[in-house]
Amino acid sequence: MVWDDLARIRERAPLVHNITNYVAMNVTANALLAVGASPVMAHAVEEVEDFAAMASALVINIGTLSPAWIDGMRHAAREARRRGVPIVLDPVGSGATAYRTAAAEMLIAEAPPTVIRGNASEILSLATGQQGTRGVDSIHDTADATPAAKRLAERHQCVVSMSGPVDVIAGADRIIRVRNGHPIMPRVTALGCIASALTGAYLAVNPSPLDAAAHAMILMGVAGEIAAERSSGPASFQTAFIDTLYGITEPDLAERAKAEWL
Amino acid sequence: MVWDDLARIRERAPLVHNITNYVAMNVTANALLAVGASPVMAHAVEEVEDFAAMASALVINIGTLSPAWIDGMRHAAREARRRGVPIVLDPVGSGATAYRTAAAEMLIAEAPPTVIRGNASEILSLATGQQGTRGVDSIHDTADATPAAKRLAERHQCVVSMSGPVDVIAGADRIIRVRNGHPIMPRVTALGCIASALTGAYLAVNPSPLDAAAHAMILMGVAGEIAAERSSGPASFQTAFIDTLYGITEPDLAERAKAEWL
Amino acid sequence: MVWDDLARIRERAPLVHNITNYVAMNVTANALLAVGASPVMAHAVEEVEDFAAMASALVINIGTLSPAWIDGMRHAAREARRRGVPIVLDPVGSGATAYRTAAAEMLIAEAPPTVIRGNASEILSLATGQQGTRGVDSIHDTADATPAAKRLAERHQCVVSMSGPVDVIAGADRIIRVRNGHPIMPRVTALGCIASALTGAYLAVNPSPLDAAAHAMILMGVAGEIAAERSSGPASFQTAFIDTLYGITEPDLAERAKAEWL
Repeated sequence: MVWDDLARIRERAPLVHNITNYVAMNVTANALLAVGASPVMAHAVEEVEDFAAMASALVINIGTLSPAWIDGMRHAAREARRRGVPIVLDPVGSGATAYRTAAAEMLIAEAPPTVIRGNASEILSLATGQQGTRGVDSIHDTADATPAAKRLAERHQCVVSMSGPVDVIAGADRIIRVRNGHPIMPRVTALGCIASALTGAYLAVNPSPLDAAAHAMILMGVAGEIAAERSSGPASFQTAFIDTLYGITEPDLAERAKAEWL
Repeated sequence: MVWDDLARIRERAPLVHNITNYVAMNVTANALLAVGASPVMAHAVEEVEDFAAMASALVINIGTLSPAWIDGMRHAAREARRRGVPIVLDPVGSGATAYRTAAAEMLIAEAPPTVIRGNASEILSLATGQQGTRGVDSIHDTADATPAAKRLAERHQCVVSMSGPVDVIAGADRIIRVRNGHPIMPRVTALGCIASALTGAYLAVNPSPLDAAAHAMILMGVAGEIAAERSSGPASFQTAFIDTLYGITEPDLAERAKAEWL
Repeated sequence: MVWDDLARIRERAPLVHNITNYVAMNVTANALLAVGASPVMAHAVEEVEDFAAMASALVINIGTLSPAWIDGMRHAAREARRRGVPIVLDPVGSGATAYRTAAAEMLIAEAPPTVIRGNASEILSLATGQQGTRGVDSIHDTADATPAAKRLAERHQCVVSMSGPVDVIAGADRIIRVRNGHPIMPRVTALGCIASALTGAYLAVNPSPLDAAAHAMILMGVAGEIAAERSSGPASFQTAFIDTLYGITEPDLAERAKAEWL
């Protein structure tokens, strides 16, 4: 299933439109190219609607936010919504500053995303409306945040995909847990951003947002395990991770995937 | 010839002023440093004229465009033109949105570039005025686009350097074809942007824009072949590619270059 | 000492707020994660005060400057100053354009940094008020610039940390020289920016700005030596450098550190 979707991505090369942060842009584009998708990075109000309209998925990431970029995100998301293009929202740092929380909430209200993809602290901030995250790294556990993820999914009729040592993907009536990955992953920047972008690529080829979101996290986790075996620190991990996304095989995924559909 | 220019770049460390996209900035700076040039990244209207005036080449890349950046590009290009500093324009995504096509056309009209360097779809959009590219990856062939490249070169009295499985460099009365490179290259982001930046470095040391543009593409292709032999996927390719630019030798270039001056 | 601080960074994971340039963002975040710190990249006036208030250090780098970013830097620096959060200023390209020199001077005047960290040309431009740097690479020697660094440190009651083949860290009444590093380092972009960010991480755990600044430069130099032994060009150096920051040990630092406290 993870493999079938990946084979479809490689075959169809879906256009994934990203409005993402400065830190993640290069590695996000490379991760999308490695799985066979065609990434576009464009943020200006003057053209985002054109790209959102031709894209097979839109990925919005608020990692390095500013007013002009929020405008671009709004225009792109409304156009994607209008055309039925699936939307992934990565609310980086929601809960850390009022500005980010408000931006994420506004984007959700204006053009409800297909998948909200973040860490436990970000999901908690959106579900409960409370501030308190320190920075952009999670200080909460996905197990503790699962009820909040479920509520958020129900409230916005979307899927909530939450990364952590155990990933939790919550739909309106189902929960999936993914137990893949490696402890070095939080020591590498932008892997969460890549997870959001790959979720976009999977949404482009799989009509079930819950399955697409779960498959993307399984791919992330399995590729992370393989990359950890082939590297000797966080930077060589980043290189091995992209190489693994490019070369990963059906047996790699079949043998290593540890997901529970609950 | 490719080598002589490279030796000159290493010796003179020409300042190359880049106004480029967020995705490509880090790898562009590293590629320029690897060949021995001195890169500057600066985009603000408040200072681009100062940098353009002290640079040996100006490279403009519209990959992640916005109005403030277009302003910076215009100011830089006019000053470069006024001072005789060679200009490379990389019209990333021209043909994909009206905004990009118009920005590229405006930049060409206001301060004609020395070299227009893009993929076949981008060159076709500028030569024919027609939209239709999907995203920023080429959907056309350089052989089919060669007459358009020639017309564009004649119309603007410039060189058009078009990358693809076969690179085509078109001047007013000559065509050069470069058959170097490797199939993994389109799976690595920003290599086209690097090609444009290296074209800038070559223009800084070679008074013939046609030769400079061709030499840069030969270097790209030969370094790509060597890097492919030393890597196991697109991310290790990117690392090996920059390392190869740094360590490449005269025999490497002499033995592998496959260029036809027509 | 270098090691004790590093152990503290790994233990406490201090939040380091960076307002830095587009070229350096990804590698800066990865370098901070590799040493155990928690990086935040945020530049908008709407939220920089919130991040500066919760951070253990603020790092400002003017590498790709524009008016909106200067606003963000001012707001962040004033809030950090008000709260006693240590500030590192990296005046990239000061002396190359009037815009950069003025921005650096304004930031120093409004919220004096704890450490000014740059290359010899940048420090000279701030100490003497004279323009003349070509681009962003240093054309001066740290030995020649030492009196200027000392004057600048006295004038602003701060530490001046100057990188070069020999690093010079100047306080009001002491000078430290660090003789670590490797000749390939100037061929890799953003290493100076990483040095500034690591200085921020050290300031977060060491109350002596002079010691913190020196320890950061020793770590940079020793990691650079180890990375050079494990790589074959500037890009594999960059990878090995981050991996080394992650895995470096107390004996690595003890055996290789070459610092003179004068």
